[in-house]
Amino acid sequence: VERLLLGKYNVRNLDSLFNPKTVAVIGAGTNLNKVGGQAILHLIMGKYQGNLYPVNPKGGTVLNHEIIPSLKQIPGDIDLAILAIPQSLIFSAVEECMEENVKFLIIHTAGFQETAAFDGKWSTIEGEFKRLLNKNRNTRIVGPNCMGIASTSSNLNALMGINLIPSGKDGLNLSVASQSGSAAAISMRAAIKHDLGISRVVSTGNELDLNLEDFLEYFGLYDDTTQVIGLFIEQLRKGPEFLRITSEIKKPIIVIKAGKTDAGAKASLSHTGSLSSSSKLYGSVFKQAGVIEVNSLPELVDFARAFAIYMKMNIMPKGKRVGIYTVGGGAGVLTTDRCAEQGLDVVPLSEDTKAKLDKLLPSIWSHINPIDLIATRDFTTTEKVLKIMINAEEFDMIIPIIPLGIDLQMGKLETIEGIPPTIEEFNKKMLKAYHKSLMDHLLKLVKVSKKPIIVPCPIYSTDMPFQYDDISTLYNAGVCVVNNVDMTTRILAKLYDFVDRQERKKNRELSIGT
Amino acid sequence: VERLLLGKYNVRNLDSLFNPKTVAVIGAGTNLNKVGGQAILHLIMGKYQGNLYPVNPKGGTVLNHEIIPSLKQIPGDIDLAILAIPQSLIFSAVEECMEENVKFLIIHTAGFQETAAFDGKWSTIEGEFKRLLNKNRNTRIVGPNCMGIASTSSNLNALMGINLIPSGKDGLNLSVASQSGSAAAISMRAAIKHDLGISRVVSTGNELDLNLEDFLEYFGLYDDTTQVIGLFIEQLRKGPEFLRITSEIKKPIIVIKAGKTDAGAKASLSHTGSLSSSSKLYGSVFKQAGVIEVNSLPELVDFARAFAIYMKMNIMPKGKRVGIYTVGGGAGVLTTDRCAEQGLDVVPLSEDTKAKLDKLLPSIWSHINPIDLIATRDFTTTEKVLKIMINAEEFDMIIPIIPLGIDLQMGKLETIEGIPPTIEEFNKKMLKAYHKSLMDHLLKLVKVSKKPIIVPCPIYSTDMPFQYDDISTLYNAGVCVVNNVDMTTRILAKLYDFVDRQERKKNRELSIGT
Repeated sequence: VERLLLGKYNVRNLDSLFNPKTVAVIGAGTNLNKVGGQAILHLIMGKYQGNLYPVNPKGGTVLNHEIIPSLKQIPGDIDLAILAIPQSLIFSAVEECMEENVKFLIIHTAGFQETAAFDGKWSTIEGEFKRLLNKNRNTRIVGPNCMGIASTSSNLNALMGINLIPSGKDGLNLSVASQSGSAAAISMRAAIKHDLGISRVVSTGNELDLNLEDFLEYFGLYDDTTQVIGLFIEQLRKGPEFLRITSEIKKPIIVIKAGKTDAGAKASLSHTGSLSSSSKLYGSVFKQAGVIEVNSLPELVDFARAFAIYMKMNIMPKGKRVGIYTVGGGAGVLTTDRCAEQGLDVVPLSEDTKAKLDKLLPSIWSHINPIDLIATRDFTTTEKVLKIMINAEEFDMIIPIIPLGIDLQMGKLETIEGIPPTIEEFNKKMLKAYHKSLMDHLLKLVKVSKKPIIVPCPIYSTDMPFQYDDISTLYNAGVCVVNNVDMTTRILAKLYDFVDRQERKKNRELSIGT
Repeated sequence: VERLLLGKYNVRNLDSLFNPKTVAVIGAGTNLNKVGGQAILHLIMGKYQGNLYPVNPKGGTVLNHEIIPSLKQIPGDIDLAILAIPQSLIFSAVEECMEENVKFLIIHTAGFQETAAFDGKWSTIEGEFKRLLNKNRNTRIVGPNCMGIASTSSNLNALMGINLIPSGKDGLNLSVASQSGSAAAISMRAAIKHDLGISRVVSTGNELDLNLEDFLEYFGLYDDTTQVIGLFIEQLRKGPEFLRITSEIKKPIIVIKAGKTDAGAKASLSHTGSLSSSSKLYGSVFKQAGVIEVNSLPELVDFARAFAIYMKMNIMPKGKRVGIYTVGGGAGVLTTDRCAEQGLDVVPLSEDTKAKLDKLLPSIWSHINPIDLIATRDFTTTEKVLKIMINAEEFDMIIPIIPLGIDLQMGKLETIEGIPPTIEEFNKKMLKAYHKSLMDHLLKLVKVSKKPIIVPCPIYSTDMPFQYDDISTLYNAGVCVVNNVDMTTRILAKLYDFVDRQERKKNRELSIGT
């Protein structure tokens, strides 16, 4: 903390890191398959528009950029230097950067604290690093042993080995700080390929200088381009700081904690050189901090997107009363189970709703919530029922179990001898028309809904390449689609918890104020 | 139970139901978009080869089959009659079937017990049905309010509204009994489209005669074509029977329980007319029965496939000691967490294994289990490491965290101005070659493995249309691929539990025998 407050570039001022005007790549080379060449390739492919200087005493040219022998040749301030060099050269390079007053360094190079357990060199290296850090307190370091950063506002892709264009979506941006490099990269790819925007991504590595808490504070309090924060945590080095920062942040913070079990903590020690504490301790810290814990990266993206969409549309749930629509009883029962497990109330239907549905539906409908139409392919009725549900006062949120993507699931029909091809064609066309009708009715509905609607749809997952335009259309209209019912109910429960917590916080602040 | 023992067609003799030589569809019609016409269409598209008789007093022709006015016109025994008629006609149709000594009836028609909660008719209907049931104890009934059955040995698709060809795989067949119709159909589709065989599927509906326990007994004790049993349970009507039957069955039984929560149980009442008991009661019954509980249909298929494959290959795990291979530390830690949560041991490496790996790898490797290579695209090394792992005495099962399908995930590269297209082409080709190399090395390895290997692969799920031939290749080679690490560890834990339980059972029987 001391160092952070002393340096010019404290967390309130990480702008030069995320919007660097001048970037140097130390260890740049002509071979695009090696880290040093690839760094240049990915910066250019990522559309970085600032001044880019490949640096290597060996010289040469890479992608029309002349490789200069030394930092000293660079005119003006250097905001960011990326170090893609072997471990043996790191210290002299860092010293050179400090002499040139480079503002931020990213050190990809591994072989530091994470090797302490099995080689004897770490204590020597650590001493040397600490001495260096204090040499110029205005040079701040990301890493070592990190994959780097990406930042949409400057089209900066400085993530080692990752070929992506950072891209945001207006008011729908996730920023990620991760103690795992691959987690940073995977969450960024999933977000930008699945209709969530990315503002910043940082892989923090060994955190010998800047750490996860610093980036959390920046994203949460000083970075307007970030709407939702994602954290991949192996170890919190500054627990009390974490609690102080989270208490000030009003944005949703979604957390993956790796190393929750003793066995996992041991594995984490080897990976980042940090020893995770017990699951229980973290559980209570997270609860106190009001962060949202998830178990995997696809979940992180699904949760982040739901928060981003419903916050932007200003239709966060006002309670936890769920209305379920289904055309299959088994699915309705399983959905009710998952709701109950998440503390959501599958409330009874009001007399008013019952009367409206009785008027609309044949007598066989379930007469309770879940509203079960038994089996229908008539989406005009579906739309009417869902409209009754979004207007019903007894519901705060809606889960429609509908066969979204059924044309894709069922589309490939077998050719059978003796069956005229027209029947198969008819079936295929029917499925397509059926799906289009479902989409049309759903989109009409969403426009008037003041409640969050989440659709569980087994053919969609952020794990997958994004193939289905319909789902993108739904996102843009303000309907979340997630892979399964479990995820649907977990997200809805957390949306409400977040609203409830913010509300109580506000009331406390008001009562203190008076 | 009484009725079951008295009738000719008890559970030991459901053969005529699943291998009917003569099938009548009562209520068959010429319109292929209505239930009665569709039943004929789907039987023919499913390739049913026996005698098929559409029955309807209205007459006509459907898909080259003359519609006959009455059952009486059918020569010889009628094994199965499918009733696709309105509720008001059911009783007279059942009586007619009984007069003709039809062996089995499937009643699709809804509007029976499940409507008891909101109309007053049920008690009258129930009395009538019970009276009917005793009129001819040799006519056995599936349903009412059920989707029907499918059976591979007779190419019989008698599932309402479902267009599929039942198909098996030698020694790799699942049979499903389900109290939810859609669950029956969905599990069948997922299984046969995702490289698991299906032997039988039955949707049991209101279970006014034959019930889930009956089919469980048949699949488990009298049906050699079934290797793994799947059950979708809303209510066990004969709990003690369930325990007796499961104690005799040596095949894995995978169970979904819907209505585990009070809210879910209430929803279930409306759906099938059965009131589920508390989650705790079922939990203890399932534990005593040694069945494997899962939460969703994709899970059921994933679990069933793993059991089928490893039982067939005779490489079920002999212990619960896991070896993890990874090229990303974060993933290794998360995997270790999930293993610990499932009771699997991420055991320390033996000195022998360490020595072998030290010889092979640069010094930066993790030196513990998970074996973390930090980052490599060299699959010759991956294969060598995995080979050391499958031969290491400290491991009973292997989880390789490898980028399976990365060419599909990353394949679509953006075109960037200023970057020569050759670089993009190169990247694409590299990814393809990279993936091919991974597959080649993996397949070589599997051939010599005597331990189960499960690969978590986010781009694959039984929920999805099956697009990736590589994953099919892996299944056929004997490697399970599932969507995520959580599923991987849950399956591995249950594989071992099953082996362990069978072992203890055998020992008990032996000690009783002596």
